[in-house]
Amino acid sequence: MDFKSLIRDVPDFPKKGILFKDITPLLKNPQAFQKVIHQMAERYKNRNLNGIVAMESRGFILGGALAAQLGVAFIPVRKPGKLPWKTYQETYDLEYGKDTLEIHQDSVAPGDKILVLDDVLATGGTAAATIRLVEKAGGQVVEACFLIHLTFLNGHEKLKSTPLYSILQF
Amino acid sequence: MDFKSLIRDVPDFPKKGILFKDITPLLKNPQAFQKVIHQMAERYKNRNLNGIVAMESRGFILGGALAAQLGVAFIPVRKPGKLPWKTYQETYDLEYGKDTLEIHQDSVAPGDKILVLDDVLATGGTAAATIRLVEKAGGQVVEACFLIHLTFLNGHEKLKSTPLYSILQF
Repeated sequence: MDFKSLIRDVPDFPKKGILFKDITPLLKNPQAFQKVIHQMAERYKNRNLNGIVAMESRGFILGGALAAQLGVAFIPVRKPGKLPWKTYQETYDLEYGKDTLEIHQDSVAPGDKILVLDDVLATGGTAAATIRLVEKAGGQVVEACFLIHLTFLNGHEKLKSTPLYSILQF
Repeated sequence: MDFKSLIRDVPDFPKKGILFKDITPLLKNPQAFQKVIHQMAERYKNRNLNGIVAMESRGFILGGALAAQLGVAFIPVRKPGKLPWKTYQETYDLEYGKDTLEIHQDSVAPGDKILVLDDVLATGGTAAATIRLVEKAGGQVVEACFLIHLTFLNGHEKLKSTPLYSILQF
């Protein structure tokens, strides 16, 4: 199935000069969405995962679907102030400024095998901060998985020793 | 299965006087999460749905899982400026001020049978605006489904003629 034809290029979003990869046409195609989740599930079904840590907001769509399919915990990583319980925080650099992500302190148990999942790997700041959050909670990140890897942005360099998997590469 | 024991009460979140229903303990419990999705899937599998419209952000977790399980379109409703393509907008009243939600104009086809899905039905503003967005796009809302219905907030009154279903009531 040609997943790439279901990714829409939107120029100058969210700001001028950025060519945004819009995944909503793929999510709207039931066969494509199911095949993406199936492909991920086949890869991870025998890895003894305890949970999937997914990033707000689009990561939640794929993460919810994959966690339910695999029968593992779904664990959200969110922007500051969104999670109601005690959290760990990690701050990371943006092109201009900084951003912070949070995870619940009771979400990952020490030794848990965790898959980090998001829709797009771009510059890698979000993914690297999420990996640090999981490790701060005592978890072990088995792999970082993305629907799309924008290889020209070199986000994989920020993931260091964490294995990386993506379904589509641009 | 006692789903209610997996919903955590967090006092004074997001602001003083509000008792927040935290669903993360349920999402972290693989059996509970799968049973919730299974219960929803059993209800809707023979309703000839075309798609599930879910609200940012927690609605994405349940919506992604249910759309993948049922084999129907996943369609996001988001805060302004988050969806990259042409959108319809609906504004609704908050306790103090207003908020706006958007849906992609090409997300719902005229006549589509749509399930609206979110984690919590509280005052109903978000749900009612989402129903209006689907109808603006020409879709037909078959039902509005929630993991939790906070019945004392009377959100069901805002849904008017749209059928309502929830798994847990408080």
